[in-house]
Amino acid sequence: MKTFIISVFTFLFCTVLSAQQALWDRPQTSSPQINEDNSVTFRLHAPKAVKVMVTGDFLPAEGIAKEDVPQTAEMNETNGVWEYTTKPLASELYSYTFIVDGLRILDPNNVYINRDVASTMNIFIVGGGQGDWYKVNDVVHGSVSKVWYESPATGLTRRMTVYTPAGYEKNRKQKYPVLYLLHGAGGDEEAWMDLGRTSQILDNLIAEGKAEPMIVVMPNGNAGEVAAPGEGPDGFRIPGFEQKGMMDGAYEMAFPDIMNYIESNYRVYKDKKHRAIAGLSMGGYHSLHISKYYPDRFDYVGLFSAAARFHEGSESPVYQNELQQIETQFANPPALYWIAIGKTDFLYEENVMLRRHFDEKGYPYEYYESEDGHIWRNWREYLTIFVPRLFK
Amino acid sequence: MKTFIISVFTFLFCTVLSAQQALWDRPQTSSPQINEDNSVTFRLHAPKAVKVMVTGDFLPAEGIAKEDVPQTAEMNETNGVWEYTTKPLASELYSYTFIVDGLRILDPNNVYINRDVASTMNIFIVGGGQGDWYKVNDVVHGSVSKVWYESPATGLTRRMTVYTPAGYEKNRKQKYPVLYLLHGAGGDEEAWMDLGRTSQILDNLIAEGKAEPMIVVMPNGNAGEVAAPGEGPDGFRIPGFEQKGMMDGAYEMAFPDIMNYIESNYRVYKDKKHRAIAGLSMGGYHSLHISKYYPDRFDYVGLFSAAARFHEGSESPVYQNELQQIETQFANPPALYWIAIGKTDFLYEENVMLRRHFDEKGYPYEYYESEDGHIWRNWREYLTIFVPRLFK
Repeated sequence: MKTFIISVFTFLFCTVLSAQQALWDRPQTSSPQINEDNSVTFRLHAPKAVKVMVTGDFLPAEGIAKEDVPQTAEMNETNGVWEYTTKPLASELYSYTFIVDGLRILDPNNVYINRDVASTMNIFIVGGGQGDWYKVNDVVHGSVSKVWYESPATGLTRRMTVYTPAGYEKNRKQKYPVLYLLHGAGGDEEAWMDLGRTSQILDNLIAEGKAEPMIVVMPNGNAGEVAAPGEGPDGFRIPGFEQKGMMDGAYEMAFPDIMNYIESNYRVYKDKKHRAIAGLSMGGYHSLHISKYYPDRFDYVGLFSAAARFHEGSESPVYQNELQQIETQFANPPALYWIAIGKTDFLYEENVMLRRHFDEKGYPYEYYESEDGHIWRNWREYLTIFVPRLFK
Repeated sequence: MKTFIISVFTFLFCTVLSAQQALWDRPQTSSPQINEDNSVTFRLHAPKAVKVMVTGDFLPAEGIAKEDVPQTAEMNETNGVWEYTTKPLASELYSYTFIVDGLRILDPNNVYINRDVASTMNIFIVGGGQGDWYKVNDVVHGSVSKVWYESPATGLTRRMTVYTPAGYEKNRKQKYPVLYLLHGAGGDEEAWMDLGRTSQILDNLIAEGKAEPMIVVMPNGNAGEVAAPGEGPDGFRIPGFEQKGMMDGAYEMAFPDIMNYIESNYRVYKDKKHRAIAGLSMGGYHSLHISKYYPDRFDYVGLFSAAARFHEGSESPVYQNELQQIETQFANPPALYWIAIGKTDFLYEENVMLRRHFDEKGYPYEYYESEDGHIWRNWREYLTIFVPRLFK
């Protein structure tokens, strides 16, 4: 029976597997390559292509929603390999795709892919600055869980993402504050994790002592939707912007179901002082309305490029007597009401008007204005600014 | 200030966002489309392409590692849209890519993507049979967590995936049995979740009363690796088959660190009767060696297409007196020792020899032989057969 005892097998085993890998047709070019000067080289092996371009948010933007439509750059071909090198880039997380004879494709050499609604894009990080907050660094890490909670208000069992900070499992007597972090239209319970790099940002801010250890709850803000595309019983559907129960009051009314689940299943403080709520775009709208409709619950409110609208005329109790709701909220004002938006955001004017009202009434808030518009680069940055302000 | 109160805003908001979506250039074709007869139609809008093919595991295989190299099928073009319809397919999860003028690309219409080592592929599920185990069905769902555990034996803090069944949070006095489920070479703590559909299989088997509620632990089997590609401090590296500490005894020696974390942090039974270990390929090798090196720990052992090898001559204590270790393990034999492999698997002969030894010694085991070879379709099927046998 000794015949099947193989002493030196690693070589054989790896040979077989490497053969398989080669057969899987992975191209031999390297892309993207981050160079020493922080320029980035993209390569694509496509000898039969006539014209190849790269497009991504490292290029200047153009067009009507200009922040979302970066320019394209032509790549040059040598021996069947198309190549383009950027100028040195600021430290950031970037996304890109190739356009081969008019067909938009992902980089076959890069397995790192983000989905934004129905668009997929490759990503890379240039380090040495802001981008370092988005990297997995050599620090202790929190856990990230996808959990299902019962929501009697919607009649559904729904999925959400929960980040618990490093040490949560060990420090069994410690209680934690909670940040509820809400996505925008077209998003879901995956968006802040994947596009927003939330767990990396929290791990890094906490490890550097810049933020308090906290639990971050990332629910699904489409009240009629059970889970993100592909994660619910409606199968591998095409993701879209329009879902049921986005901005009709249903989500705000059902929000206590989320809080109940968290406060029943995690070691958290259950008072206003230890609760924050923030969101981007539609999630900013939700944060505005949830924090005013439940005026005694949240001591920290963050509106990131918010759809900063009231909604009078709707039948939902969330939208009745809205100005009075805000008046009540600010009778005992939040420790921090933080409004941030980019200069070219299509929601800029709404935020001007909201701030004008707050100014007229003397409601305390802080305002942060960034460059550019309605883009994830801003929302990731806002998170790195907002989180260190919480629970202190 | 009423100027910023907008009663009918949804139309406006959606218009702006839809415009953005259009600008993101998502093609208007639908792909893949699962037809009523379970044939599947692929489409690609590529008017400038000369030749477009589709390849995927719904096509017959060919070549030396034939299970991994499906044939290609030529697509036909009409008005710039290339199209191919399969014959009716058996219920299953399938993967595919397109080949456009020699360039392998993902389907731009399908955001559902799996990574297998360094290859990315689109996926779809044909229902009505085996594939239904892999769908998210309208049943209660378990939670899935990515956690970090300290591993003194490797000197690292490492990442793993933990599935807890539906009801775990509620039934606070209930203890659960544990299945340790191990990946193959080139895999990591994501593989069984993404390629193996483990949480869907467990949710569905438990909901139908075919399996006991259990916790499933999916560690990273490369003992020198902190986490899956992109999830550790080595950044967005290119995934590869060869990692540190795969089959040199380091993982087996460090396995108690994993068990300690689970048994300290979850409500689990801590005896042999309530522990199972199973794995595919290299993970089958690990299951073989871990279960014999710790002979009193696991009452259920599953070898899925295992590298069913001993390793005498190595210095690791895991590989000393191996036949004696097995003898000791079978002195009080596991309730189930399950060996499964496909008829054309390149590891078939090793499994013949392992079974011959077990037969000679009279060690009890069960054997399951499937069609085809070293492929995820088999490992998903093996899991649906193995899991209902556990803890009963």
